[in-house]
Amino acid sequence: MTEHTVDAFHFGRFYLVQPAKGGHRSGMDAMLLASMVDGRGAIRVADLGAGAGAAGLAVASRLENAAVTLVERSTLMADYARRSVDLPENADLAGRITVIEADVTLTGKARVAAGLEDEAFDHVIMNPPFNDAADRKTPDAIKAEAHAMTEGLFESWIRTAGAIMKPGGQLSLIARPESISEIISACGRRFGGLEVTLIHPREGENAVRMLVSAIKASRARLKVRSPFFMHGENGHKFTPFVDDLNNGRTAYSRR
Amino acid sequence: MTEHTVDAFHFGRFYLVQPAKGGHRSGMDAMLLASMVDGRGAIRVADLGAGAGAAGLAVASRLENAAVTLVERSTLMADYARRSVDLPENADLAGRITVIEADVTLTGKARVAAGLEDEAFDHVIMNPPFNDAADRKTPDAIKAEAHAMTEGLFESWIRTAGAIMKPGGQLSLIARPESISEIISACGRRFGGLEVTLIHPREGENAVRMLVSAIKASRARLKVRSPFFMHGENGHKFTPFVDDLNNGRTAYSRR
Repeated sequence: MTEHTVDAFHFGRFYLVQPAKGGHRSGMDAMLLASMVDGRGAIRVADLGAGAGAAGLAVASRLENAAVTLVERSTLMADYARRSVDLPENADLAGRITVIEADVTLTGKARVAAGLEDEAFDHVIMNPPFNDAADRKTPDAIKAEAHAMTEGLFESWIRTAGAIMKPGGQLSLIARPESISEIISACGRRFGGLEVTLIHPREGENAVRMLVSAIKASRARLKVRSPFFMHGENGHKFTPFVDDLNNGRTAYSRR
Repeated sequence: MTEHTVDAFHFGRFYLVQPAKGGHRSGMDAMLLASMVDGRGAIRVADLGAGAGAAGLAVASRLENAAVTLVERSTLMADYARRSVDLPENADLAGRITVIEADVTLTGKARVAAGLEDEAFDHVIMNPPFNDAADRKTPDAIKAEAHAMTEGLFESWIRTAGAIMKPGGQLSLIARPESISEIISACGRRFGGLEVTLIHPREGENAVRMLVSAIKASRARLKVRSPFFMHGENGHKFTPFVDDLNNGRTAYSRR
């Protein structure tokens, strides 16, 4: 295994084994995503594209009756997830975590064979990989291709989420604001009742992230909720509400 | 002419003749829409679905070199617009306002014949009528139909905006947040560089309106700007920035 770090989250309530550099290191995005899962009862949660498992472990850490399935295609990252689950510090969670090494975009029997059964989960969360290529200044043709790839990503990931989720279940995701149209399109008739929350670094600055939740088969209309400002006017400290979400002290529940 | 009122806007810098009840009475939405037009030079602005002309007159009032074309299908409302232009109090603006009684959804030669020529305008503004039917609790079929009608509206209105606008021109509109996907779809490849601003009554409350601007043929990605909160925590007074926009003291320029 390549060089790694073991990092504390939620003030040491769980730990994560992550690559020291390269790969994807988890942080704020995963914690905000995890905050969108609520519910005291015994719920089953799937974390699609789980990476080293940050969001899924954060859910299991805060909700003691949640059983979480981490779905990750990359053997490298799934290994980190398995090592995270095996850490002695995570012993309280380990029994409620399952790691599935599989591609989120599998369909039909292949998906079921991988362990992602129909209508099995109460809540599906996802933090799909950003297509950073599209950020660079590139010729229109390459940009358009990158754009098309991203569209396909939301379509296939949200299709899987819809298939493995119980009726009335909740989808929650974190993404970049420019993906809003693709996400709404992919929700289509599979999901409704979208609640969108923009995340701005500070008041006066453009949004950098967006939280979206939706309910399977709902026909309710989209709402845009009050935004989050990560920081106050001065300094780099998180605002108290964002800090609470980041540290697993509270859930960001639907209205 | 039915019962009407004559209302002062921008602290009396222009006046509007409006139906006393029924029809559409203009206010905040029109003033926020008007604030999105900027530019010191001689610009041509089209106000699609102008009603009694509130937004268009507000633009002409604040920008002394702007020539504004009000486009309104309803004879009743176009009459109010013409009477507004003819008010002695609006004498300074009257020479720069044209009223066209025409359907925004006209295409091709019929549109040109109505006075809406290709690539004629620097800026097109619109405050499309809301489909209030979709707000009521109705069976899914009726809801779906209402939804489809709204989609068609943005598609046809934004198509017209694209056709009559000069290359590099700006589209600005105010709409409800739930229309965001339809608006982005209608912009398609006609418009890019979308800037979206959500408007919330207060912090902590859902957005009730959305400002969207876009540039003809731009390929730049969508941005979500810092939101507006109309009111402070207490009371019904507008926050200073919103009050400035509402009263034509400043423009809400693109970034």
